[in-house]
Order: sequence, then structure tokens, then C-alpha cells
Amino acid sequence: MEIFYCKQISGGICTLDKEESGHVVKVLRHRAGDELSLFDGEGNLYRCCLTDASPTAAQARIVEQIPDWGAVPYRLTMAVCPTKRNERYEWFAEKATEMGVDAIVPVIGEHSERRVFKTDRLKKILLSASKQSLKGRIPAVEEPCTVREFIRRSDPSALRLIAWCFELEGVERKAIGDVLDAQPGRPACILIGPEGDFSREEAQLALDAGFIPVHLGSSRLRTETAALAAVSAFYVKYLCTSA
Amino acid sequence: MEIFYCKQISGGICTLDKEESGHVVKVLRHRAGDELSLFDGEGNLYRCCLTDASPTAAQARIVEQIPDWGAVPYRLTMAVCPTKRNERYEWFAEKATEMGVDAIVPVIGEHSERRVFKTDRLKKILLSASKQSLKGRIPAVEEPCTVREFIRRSDPSALRLIAWCFELEGVERKAIGDVLDAQPGRPACILIGPEGDFSREEAQLALDAGFIPVHLGSSRLRTETAALAAVSAFYVKYLCTSA
Repeated sequence: MEIFYCKQISGGICTLDKEESGHVVKVLRHRAGDELSLFDGEGNLYRCCLTDASPTAAQARIVEQIPDWGAVPYRLTMAVCPTKRNERYEWFAEKATEMGVDAIVPVIGEHSERRVFKTDRLKKILLSASKQSLKGRIPAVEEPCTVREFIRRSDPSALRLIAWCFELEGVERKAIGDVLDAQPGRPACILIGPEGDFSREEAQLALDAGFIPVHLGSSRLRTETAALAAVSAFYVKYLCTSA
Repeated sequence: MEIFYCKQISGGICTLDKEESGHVVKVLRHRAGDELSLFDGEGNLYRCCLTDASPTAAQARIVEQIPDWGAVPYRLTMAVCPTKRNERYEWFAEKATEMGVDAIVPVIGEHSERRVFKTDRLKKILLSASKQSLKGRIPAVEEPCTVREFIRRSDPSALRLIAWCFELEGVERKAIGDVLDAQPGRPACILIGPEGDFSREEAQLALDAGFIPVHLGSSRLRTETAALAAVSAFYVKYLCTSA
């Protein structure tokens, strides 16, 4: 099945933008009367009937609305420091979207080499990954903030995890799988550091704020692989294992 | 820590090839007497003392040998159909190596668009991923074979899984996490199909051979994402969850 993105919806009528209209009408040669599946990127799938096959502003009438379409049974925000090579971050974000993630926050750590991050390109990638993996909701891409700022702003009611690789005296990092088994169903956020890892001050700040230190296994994983392993821990627990 | 690859080992002396010698001597400027960590790609890490800082054929004396270095506590062969775009397959193989996999077999399915696969480039990628993730053993990359051939050759004593996306009458696909929980510790192989999925004949052939049909969750995952989700199911169960 193929779904098309539509932001402009009012009075039961969806108006496609130029790009999607061209794809629907010129490329796929849909005609008035054809059935179309549109999604608004906010969780809704709309089964529609194409009413105006304009190649620049096609319109479709909503026949049925399906909320929370393709939603995963967990809530997960990934706060991940940008990788030196941008395509590695984009790869992580694409794969996380396919599996299922609610939000991606580029956080800048004290040891981050890349301190600037543009979100526009990533948003396009997540839109297309959401289409490909049939998800009604496109993961949010938040504007970059520092690790300290993210910790300060984080919701204390959420299951807040941080993964670092160094030893911190008196601190035991739990296996992420054990933490998820012990606290199922809670909305979660996970902090993943840069190639140079978090600073000890950032780690301590997270601990003081109530973050749970976790490890992602004994393998030395790249930043983007660690981030995806964390998403996988949720995906495998909630979607590849029966309750 | 940095490790260097060395195939030529005899009489307690490791002789590095031109590339690694250049890296050790010219780039990192190691001198005779320096400590080096070498690995043979077959599971052994060697703590060595550099005895000859030749920029083309450096030699080091083995001080200590550590077998099964960086080994993961599961045995996994991934038989994955090549993706249309090669870099997606290479990405999967790199990430699977970081997490831990024993062998990768490019299998050609009846619906595979790419029917030719060169393994040389992939082997280089896995060598560098093994170095990066500190694994003494480089995953084997087998020569391509057809899905039918792989099924025919597969070891009946292994936990053999196949993931397809269509409905096959009378066949229930189990969640991969449940299968792993029910049969821990068995050497496993997993068949992942191409963009066009397996043919029903291939699926039936696998069933007849005793493969267990599994699903990888409700998300529609790309071939390379499905393959990594399967590796993640093992990685999370064995390395991110305490027994």
C-alpha cells in the first residue's frame, strides 16, 4: 500500500501540496473517483476519494478517518548527540522511524565535535521513512539543545535513561533490557552521547536529576548504533515479544 | 584502545602487512619496544611488543594471547537477500558486526532484483567494523547462494528462523522474541527476504525443512532494517538483559 502526506485538511476535504499532487496525478495517474490513503503526520490515516485530480493541488474527500494509525505501544524520545558524519545520524533517525520513535532531539554534549545541527533535512527523511513504514505519525524532530538543557527540561514522570561508557565510582549501570522489564509502559527518554562520550559532569547532572544509568551491552557501539540498539530494546520488547 | 589486524603469525611473531605497518609506524609513529594489540580475525587478541618498526612489514612479539576476545554469548548466522541499493546491505552488515554476528550469507531469492553480489567490499567493511567494535573475530561473509540452496544446506540442529510478511494459510508466525525466549542458547540462523519478499514456494520449502516462521513486529521494515531488528533481538536478549 502507498500513503500520501497531506497537511491541508478542512471540512472533510484534503488538499495535497504540489509535490504530492504531482506524484498522485502525474506519476501514478490517479483520476477523480480513485481511492487514496492520506496521512497527516499526526497519527491519522484518511481513506479518501480523489475528487479533483489537479496536478498541482489535488483534492480528496475523506471517507474514513483512522486515528493512531501504525502507532507503536510505547512512547520514546531519543536524545542523541549528532555524529561527526551526518549521514550516520540520518541513518539512525530513518531506522528509528521505521521501528517506531516519537521524537528525536539532537543534543549537544560538552565533548560533541559537531555543535551545529540542521533539522530540515532530517525532517524530510523522517517523512519518507514514515510513509515507507506506514506510520501515521511522523516523529518530531526538536531543535538542538545542550545535554544540560535537555536534562534540565526533562519530565521527571518519564522513565529517563542515560547511556555512557566510562566507569563512574559508586554508580552501577543497569542493562537497558532489565530496566524496561522492571518498568514497562512508562513513557521514556534516552540520552545517547557523542563519539567522545558524555562528560563526567553531564553524567553526574543526569544522575542528580534522577536519570537511570544504563548500558547497551558489552560491544563498543558507534553513537548511531548505540542509539538504534536502545530503540531496538523497546521495539523487540513491545512488538517482537508477546506480553 | 586501538587494535590492528594481522594474518601472518608464526613462532610467536606477528608480521603486519603493508597497510597496517604503515598505520602503526608512519601514522601512529610507534617504535620498537611499544606495546601493540593485534587480532587475527579468528577470535584471538594478541598483546604484543613491537620488535621491528618497519613501515612495510612491521613485526611484533606476542606477549599474551586472549582467545574468544570480544565474543558474544550467542551464535548467529544472518542469511539476508541483497538490497537493491548496496549501501543499505553494507550498513546492515556493519551494524550487525558492531552488535555481534558470526556469519553473513547473501542469499538470492526468487523475487530478488539484485542477483549478483560481490563479497570483497563487504569483507573490508566487516574488518573495519570488527576493529571499531573490538571484536576478535571478523564475521564470515559467505559466497552468495540461492534461498533454496541455503535452506537445503542448513543445519537441522540449529534454530532456523525465516521472516516473511505475507499470510500463508494455516501458518502462524511467532514473534521472534518469544522464539528466542523459548529456545535460548541454540546456534541460530535467520532468513530475511528481498524487497519483494520470499516466494510462497520458498516459504513452503523452509517450512518443510523445519524452519520456524517468525515476525519482526508490526512495523513495515525495509530489508536491512528487518535484518538488523533480528540481530538486535539476539543482542538485546543476550547482552542487554541479565539472565
